[in-house]
Amino acid sequence: MPKISEKGLAMPASPIRKLVPFAEEAKRKGRKVYHLNIGQPDIPTPQVALEAIRHHDLKVVEYSHSAGNESYRKGLASYYKGIGVDITHNDIIVTTGGSEAITIALMSCLNPGDEVIIPEPFYANYNSFALQAGVVVKPIVSSIQNDFALPPISEFEKLISPKTKGIIICNPNNPTGYLYSQQEIEQLATIVKKHDLYLFSDEVYREFCYDGNTHFSVMRLTGLDNNIVLIDSVSKRYSMCGVRIGALISRNKEVIATAMKFAQARLSPPSFGQIAAEAALNTPPEYFKEVYDEYINRRNFMVDALNKMEGVYCPKPKGAFYSVVKLPIDDSDKFAQWLLESFEYKNQTVMVAPATGFYSTKGLGKNEVRIAYVLNTEDLRNAMECLEVALKQYPGRKL
Amino acid sequence: MPKISEKGLAMPASPIRKLVPFAEEAKRKGRKVYHLNIGQPDIPTPQVALEAIRHHDLKVVEYSHSAGNESYRKGLASYYKGIGVDITHNDIIVTTGGSEAITIALMSCLNPGDEVIIPEPFYANYNSFALQAGVVVKPIVSSIQNDFALPPISEFEKLISPKTKGIIICNPNNPTGYLYSQQEIEQLATIVKKHDLYLFSDEVYREFCYDGNTHFSVMRLTGLDNNIVLIDSVSKRYSMCGVRIGALISRNKEVIATAMKFAQARLSPPSFGQIAAEAALNTPPEYFKEVYDEYINRRNFMVDALNKMEGVYCPKPKGAFYSVVKLPIDDSDKFAQWLLESFEYKNQTVMVAPATGFYSTKGLGKNEVRIAYVLNTEDLRNAMECLEVALKQYPGRKL
Repeated sequence: MPKISEKGLAMPASPIRKLVPFAEEAKRKGRKVYHLNIGQPDIPTPQVALEAIRHHDLKVVEYSHSAGNESYRKGLASYYKGIGVDITHNDIIVTTGGSEAITIALMSCLNPGDEVIIPEPFYANYNSFALQAGVVVKPIVSSIQNDFALPPISEFEKLISPKTKGIIICNPNNPTGYLYSQQEIEQLATIVKKHDLYLFSDEVYREFCYDGNTHFSVMRLTGLDNNIVLIDSVSKRYSMCGVRIGALISRNKEVIATAMKFAQARLSPPSFGQIAAEAALNTPPEYFKEVYDEYINRRNFMVDALNKMEGVYCPKPKGAFYSVVKLPIDDSDKFAQWLLESFEYKNQTVMVAPATGFYSTKGLGKNEVRIAYVLNTEDLRNAMECLEVALKQYPGRKL
Repeated sequence: MPKISEKGLAMPASPIRKLVPFAEEAKRKGRKVYHLNIGQPDIPTPQVALEAIRHHDLKVVEYSHSAGNESYRKGLASYYKGIGVDITHNDIIVTTGGSEAITIALMSCLNPGDEVIIPEPFYANYNSFALQAGVVVKPIVSSIQNDFALPPISEFEKLISPKTKGIIICNPNNPTGYLYSQQEIEQLATIVKKHDLYLFSDEVYREFCYDGNTHFSVMRLTGLDNNIVLIDSVSKRYSMCGVRIGALISRNKEVIATAMKFAQARLSPPSFGQIAAEAALNTPPEYFKEVYDEYINRRNFMVDALNKMEGVYCPKPKGAFYSVVKLPIDDSDKFAQWLLESFEYKNQTVMVAPATGFYSTKGLGKNEVRIAYVLNTEDLRNAMECLEVALKQYPGRKL
């Protein structure tokens, strides 16, 4: 029997996926499981996008341009103009989700053995994308004590080596919900400029900023056109994760020309997804207002409920729809499994994502979980009630 | 300015793409360009697939299962049963096109530096996928003198080294249109078994077999369950290249488990594409009959027309919708560019794919081009007329 590759063996299985069989078993027992573990919003996709798909007039579903349909890219360029980012459609490659954008960006810019610095906790799949490109992740701890703010630049400096070629940030952040301020982004810019690094900025939660805070895109930094690669996606913005449409954006012509060679090899991004994404550019402003109101309500309810529980601390996230929460537990992996396997309250339980999966440094995140507030307030209320009871009963409770 | 990666620099630009500006310029001059260069069929997508998309009832376009919707995978398993391949839906991972299936297969099975043998000429993007995985392609020449039949097994033996980990075939073949016989596949099987290699078989043109010849899938070989990885796609079968739905299939549980980790990292294949692909499983048999008749007519017309031209030889392909054709020319890259840049006949010209892009061995394919018979017979007739005149006028003519 031929061997599996070393990369294949090293590829991390999703930290949530290993819990799936336990969730399925709980459901088989007739238990209601509240999914606080996923980034799949329950918010409806904009009608304008769903309708565009229904009214498609394709006779042959052909390959699109490898960079994506020009009309969509031109529409996207206008969208960016609206948020203060001046680019043309030639700076954009439409990708199959944000996932492909990151993979192509890393493969285009970094060599195997090169290092990227990422503030942790970070989106677990960055590990997988880095592994695919042979890139080494150097984590830098952001702490719940500072509500996961950007670590001091001096901490970045300590990690910089001749092998350091880039920094990856996610803003607003998955999993912490932290929104970097303009000042923090400008601090990052100084180190990027000083060491001539790439700055990969994943801004797929851009529309989810709360409490009057506004998003400051790295694309608005000046003098760093050749260093910045923007990763984007329509998955969260329009609640249509399944269309698999993202984008890789850069004013660095060489990066775009190189990324295009990867894009051409895989032929084209999905045609129907592009139809939905282009139509979604015309989503009425009320849609976003409603979504905003809904998330604000959920977040406020959840943060309050969590912080009332003994030994629990939940920062008040200013963006996205996640929070990394400190719990009075010994081991978040054990706790998450125990919730599904051994616990029930009124025949209900909750599924959470152990934060260990979001840290690259071994041992971190053991008393933290990521909670996504992607449920309606009524479900959230039940889920919080469950969690409170569970924390009291959990054998590994540790205040 | 930070550097581009070595892989990025090494990634081959598509051999066809560099001709695109010349084609665009020709069109700007008002010239009609017959595209014999592409694998984009003009055949309509089955109505049943287009209708399923029109009647979708999604409210939230969610991520699907990372392996693809279970209902679609079960439908696919039935489809395979119908062609004599006994597998379950658990042996299938739905991918974003055949492209992603190959990329994930190579990354899951091979280490950087490992070697794969591929009979050349081969689909140019195999080079790109291999490069992404750090895999070294060892070509083995199949010759137009034998109509591109499988090279003798002794030629494979000569290339086998401790680094050889797999063989890639495409059957029916793009670019040659060659259909491997059951006997040839069984010959391959002996060497795969002897050296415990992976056999990656790209069978996306399976439905396109002519003259009473039937397709023999590698999945019907016995005793090689752990060695075989099937690459599939709905792009050509249902003429819907843009939906980006393919599949990676293996009875090797470790390969599937490993490939799933890559599949989970990129979250899911496109939702709308899966709807179209699942519906397309119910395409009526008449559809395939019509498509078959159309391609047979085109092929027969084209092969006859080509072989009547002085110094031209076109094998009669038994599968797919391509042929690699020998022309009386000095350099196929120059010829293809000259056709677009300097030639016209009745204000028309043709675009062909230089075969050099399909050979890994430098210097091969200089007097060959790939022609795709994806045009209707009337257009094909005009294209052949153009080509005949062009060959007489071409300054680099070489009988």
